[in-house]
Amino acid sequence: MIRQAQAVQKLAPISWKDTNVLGGLWGRRQQINHFVTIPSQYKRFEERGSFEALKRNWKAGDPNAPHPFWDSDFGKWIEAAAFSLAKYPDPELEKLVDSVIDEIAENQQSDGYFNTYFDLIEPDKKWTNLYYMHELYCAGHLAEGAVAYYLATGKRKFLDVMCRYMDHIDARFGSEPGKIHGYCGHQEIELALVKLYRATGEERYLKLSKYFIDERGKQPYFFELESLQRGVDTEKTANQQRHLKYYLKEHGPYAEYQSHLPVREQEAPVGHAVRAMYMYSAMADLAADTQDKTLLDASEKLWDRLTQRQMYITGGIGPSSDGERFTFDYDLPNEYTYNETCASIGLVMWAHRMLQFNADRKYADVMEQTLYNTVLSGVSVNGDEYSYANYLAVYPDRFKYASTLIIDKMMPGRHKWFNVACCPPNVARLIASIGQYMYSTSEDGIYVHLYNDSETTVDVKGNRVTLTQQTNYPWEGHIGLTIMPETAAEFTVAVRYPGWCSHAEVKVNGNKVDAPIVNGYFMLNRNWAQGDVVELLLDMPIQLVESHPSVRTNSGKVALQRGPLVYCMEETDNARDLSDLSLVDETDIKVQYEADLLDGVVTLELKGQRRETSSWEGQLYRPVQTQKTDVLVKAIPYFLWANRDPGEMLIWINHNCSCGSH
Amino acid sequence: MIRQAQAVQKLAPISWKDTNVLGGLWGRRQQINHFVTIPSQYKRFEERGSFEALKRNWKAGDPNAPHPFWDSDFGKWIEAAAFSLAKYPDPELEKLVDSVIDEIAENQQSDGYFNTYFDLIEPDKKWTNLYYMHELYCAGHLAEGAVAYYLATGKRKFLDVMCRYMDHIDARFGSEPGKIHGYCGHQEIELALVKLYRATGEERYLKLSKYFIDERGKQPYFFELESLQRGVDTEKTANQQRHLKYYLKEHGPYAEYQSHLPVREQEAPVGHAVRAMYMYSAMADLAADTQDKTLLDASEKLWDRLTQRQMYITGGIGPSSDGERFTFDYDLPNEYTYNETCASIGLVMWAHRMLQFNADRKYADVMEQTLYNTVLSGVSVNGDEYSYANYLAVYPDRFKYASTLIIDKMMPGRHKWFNVACCPPNVARLIASIGQYMYSTSEDGIYVHLYNDSETTVDVKGNRVTLTQQTNYPWEGHIGLTIMPETAAEFTVAVRYPGWCSHAEVKVNGNKVDAPIVNGYFMLNRNWAQGDVVELLLDMPIQLVESHPSVRTNSGKVALQRGPLVYCMEETDNARDLSDLSLVDETDIKVQYEADLLDGVVTLELKGQRRETSSWEGQLYRPVQTQKTDVLVKAIPYFLWANRDPGEMLIWINHNCSCGSH
Repeated sequence: MIRQAQAVQKLAPISWKDTNVLGGLWGRRQQINHFVTIPSQYKRFEERGSFEALKRNWKAGDPNAPHPFWDSDFGKWIEAAAFSLAKYPDPELEKLVDSVIDEIAENQQSDGYFNTYFDLIEPDKKWTNLYYMHELYCAGHLAEGAVAYYLATGKRKFLDVMCRYMDHIDARFGSEPGKIHGYCGHQEIELALVKLYRATGEERYLKLSKYFIDERGKQPYFFELESLQRGVDTEKTANQQRHLKYYLKEHGPYAEYQSHLPVREQEAPVGHAVRAMYMYSAMADLAADTQDKTLLDASEKLWDRLTQRQMYITGGIGPSSDGERFTFDYDLPNEYTYNETCASIGLVMWAHRMLQFNADRKYADVMEQTLYNTVLSGVSVNGDEYSYANYLAVYPDRFKYASTLIIDKMMPGRHKWFNVACCPPNVARLIASIGQYMYSTSEDGIYVHLYNDSETTVDVKGNRVTLTQQTNYPWEGHIGLTIMPETAAEFTVAVRYPGWCSHAEVKVNGNKVDAPIVNGYFMLNRNWAQGDVVELLLDMPIQLVESHPSVRTNSGKVALQRGPLVYCMEETDNARDLSDLSLVDETDIKVQYEADLLDGVVTLELKGQRRETSSWEGQLYRPVQTQKTDVLVKAIPYFLWANRDPGEMLIWINHNCSCGSH
Repeated sequence: MIRQAQAVQKLAPISWKDTNVLGGLWGRRQQINHFVTIPSQYKRFEERGSFEALKRNWKAGDPNAPHPFWDSDFGKWIEAAAFSLAKYPDPELEKLVDSVIDEIAENQQSDGYFNTYFDLIEPDKKWTNLYYMHELYCAGHLAEGAVAYYLATGKRKFLDVMCRYMDHIDARFGSEPGKIHGYCGHQEIELALVKLYRATGEERYLKLSKYFIDERGKQPYFFELESLQRGVDTEKTANQQRHLKYYLKEHGPYAEYQSHLPVREQEAPVGHAVRAMYMYSAMADLAADTQDKTLLDASEKLWDRLTQRQMYITGGIGPSSDGERFTFDYDLPNEYTYNETCASIGLVMWAHRMLQFNADRKYADVMEQTLYNTVLSGVSVNGDEYSYANYLAVYPDRFKYASTLIIDKMMPGRHKWFNVACCPPNVARLIASIGQYMYSTSEDGIYVHLYNDSETTVDVKGNRVTLTQQTNYPWEGHIGLTIMPETAAEFTVAVRYPGWCSHAEVKVNGNKVDAPIVNGYFMLNRNWAQGDVVELLLDMPIQLVESHPSVRTNSGKVALQRGPLVYCMEETDNARDLSDLSLVDETDIKVQYEADLLDGVVTLELKGQRRETSSWEGQLYRPVQTQKTDVLVKAIPYFLWANRDPGEMLIWINHNCSCGSH
């Protein structure tokens, strides 16, 4: 008998509870997240009537009809609050969360079912439109919230409520006769079930997750059978635009929801980007917890295809606003894009899972790239405004004169809220849980993936080891790690050598060491005593980055990157017509920390040129001339765009050689 | 009393009958137009059931329900046939036209009304939805066809039918009580009425045209009142996408149809591009025939705004596929564009009218630029395939993976036909009537605007003058004109010095002359005897053209132009990833006439570079390197794109200096 290859994680993820983010950029973002973002989101919920709907006070004809996704917003918000409460004890917030949980418990049906929308709007249509109505998706987000709140506070009430609900779902869905042989149109419950399994040890949650993943993409398609049961002929309605949207010509029916093929046969990211990320994350979870290497193999193939052909330099993914989806290899338009914040959050989640299998920096690099650029771009500096679409270039006139197809969430810049408000609580829970992404443990040590002031205490071969990190990263490349094992012992401290960095040094107790590098990590194996200090010195010059020749929008252009941060130019610093700027001398760049700007930021000033419009009076085209005006180009980190005056924004800038005009 | 300034035409347009296009590029296009395009279009009409509908043989429930625009297609097709019959006597085609006309006459109602769609589909809804249903638009195109056929053949039948129809319309529309105080949602009848007035001398047609133009944009808006009469509250339905489409945020209600403001107050081209061009043409016609300078002033303002800020280098206009409309100043995206063929045909019509007022080459330059690029792009070399959207850059994958919003006419490349088939017969009538655009007469002579083998006979101060043009333009810049006055006499031959040309010489009977240049025309005033020969020698180097710094898509790029022809690169000559090509040495260009390629064409070969993808395995971004591979870039005239293998196409190409890498 041939033994199946098994999926084995080289690393073990740590809990978000194991890391205390002490300060620095992420510490500051957590502070704002706790004191501004999370409370203000609750206010938004109240304003739109979510809490009244939760209490079942809404009646037909009232304004603020509940939206099918509202439960999921509460789930993510509770999860964010739970993560944040572990760091910032806050009785008032906890009381607020408890009041939401009480209402959920109060309104859970006797059979365990809970869904605000269906309760109030379509009580007779439960489980009849998995394709479109996000019922299992909402259950998943509530379950994630329940697990987090239980782990944060030890209170079981919400966990018990959600276990009863999941038991109900388990009784309704599955391969057995009489059950629904289906799955959700928006993946989410799959990864939530794995979390619930890990928190409770109940294997049926793991099995149900596996069922949903394994069932997906089988023919005849569940969504088609389900539609027929509702009396909708999808074949016929495919001619209607709304439905056609979910039929991708190149991939077939239901590719928008990644259910065109069994997941193990999927080779390229297609369809709705957030759904894809949540599904790939669940595939990695199941690979880890069931040792299913076929799922890991599929995930790795999808990973390479995504990161090598369909990911923006900012970690943004999903360029098409129509269907919020992937398009095709190397199609990465900067201005006509979408890049939903949630999709990049999903990418961070997936990257973190993939990282544990291979302990390879390629996953941590993408995680860092995505966190520091698109994810942070998703929330304003002040913490209560958001972006849904994360453009790489903005020309505001385009939106002023836009067609009706530009809806609120596509407007560039910051928004207090959205009609579909998935992104704000998603970014809140990500920031509140950032600590879990920073470290992992391995059989013989501890891995440091991300750099930020923080402290973690983990178990290494039975020894409690506290690691304290001090750094001004990402503004500076010097990182100090103090190792405090309970007992001095030999183990490995693996320190990531970021892919963006061309030269790094490592010191232990002040002495440079020549550590081996394995999969992009410095492997510092030695006998560690209390107070040993590791220093990582990362060269952090400005890099001019080019993109693959097939990325048609970026030919002849470069992006500016310093450390993990991609930079952008804004109109407020550089006047209009940003696209006409070109860099001419990358050897002379002023790098400056501006404490008073945007909550403290390293800005860049570079020598550039632009054409003056004054000589163009009345002309639109003319034989090429090369007179240009020297200008200083000022750049700020991309994640800080749209925090000042609205205007143009640009990442990819023309790059001319510095030999002057000819 | 202050005398109002009057609009006065410096030039008189000639009739299409006055010029015989003998050969050359336009002669060849006319030949293909007559023997392929016009007959094959009639076949398309038959295939889709237009002729059966015209005969009123269609019944509810039958396939091929008549489309509201079908009458207009017949109108344009008859007009094309009429123009072409004047050059190519063709009894078979004439019989076919007569049969169509017989059916129109047969089915004209006793009160003069004629509309196939309303007769068959909504007989009770005549004149109730001017806003949307193109009723007057169809009447206009039929009238244009009737005038042309009368002038071509002397047969009055169709002209009489259309006069009766216009008399019916005149009785229904106007300022008098009891009449409809309205106008059409798609302008067209206004210019048709001027043609009918000119052909018949009936002033009521001119007055009705003036009424439609003067009424437009008055408040309360006719379209709103009309909607209310139909029971549609436009204010309310403005929230529905379909209607919002016609409400342009920056311009207000009905700007899509250029009826947001009285025409004399309109300063920028807005809304649907074809409607705008037809309206501006009518405004110029009315300015000419009523000496209304306020209309001319408005036209000139609109002209400058359009040509200086919203026109592609190809003469394409109207970048937004949503609403087929203009967007905002300097918004000229190459790939995400529309540029309907009909809009550029309308631009040629308007340019020709404006040219007569000022005898200024700026109008003739745009006319030429548009004709040789976007208009000719609208029909395939073989003459029976068309483009509706005329992109300036094509990446076919975009359409494979496109959303449902990409409809047939937006697919790049050639199409046998379109669901809305306005463009094919429009390009047919333009090509068949190209002769009229070549010359004008002035008080003391003759103006030569366009260059092509041709012969025209016009009246100059009572003297019949025949002018014969021989040239291999646009492939070569040598133009010969032989002047044959009936009687030797002094007059002026004005010869256009094209704006694209940086150096030109003029010879008379072999001797170089130093002729004065007025508004871009060499003014050759002398005593002309039979057989005098004028030679115009235009330098025709390859020009690298840049666009205004505010055209954000073209910064760092150039377009290649030779004479009036804009060039493009196609995948079939240059492999994929055209956007990564860059020109490095514009001093060494191979210019070659290839007789066997695309019906004979001057191609260009330039030294360029591209980045090789081979060194990128697995990478999407990397620190910039400058290794590039030398390549030859082959370019063909833009108007010939999409006549070979489908693939990428590009006009604006990266332009690097030739100093090598650094």
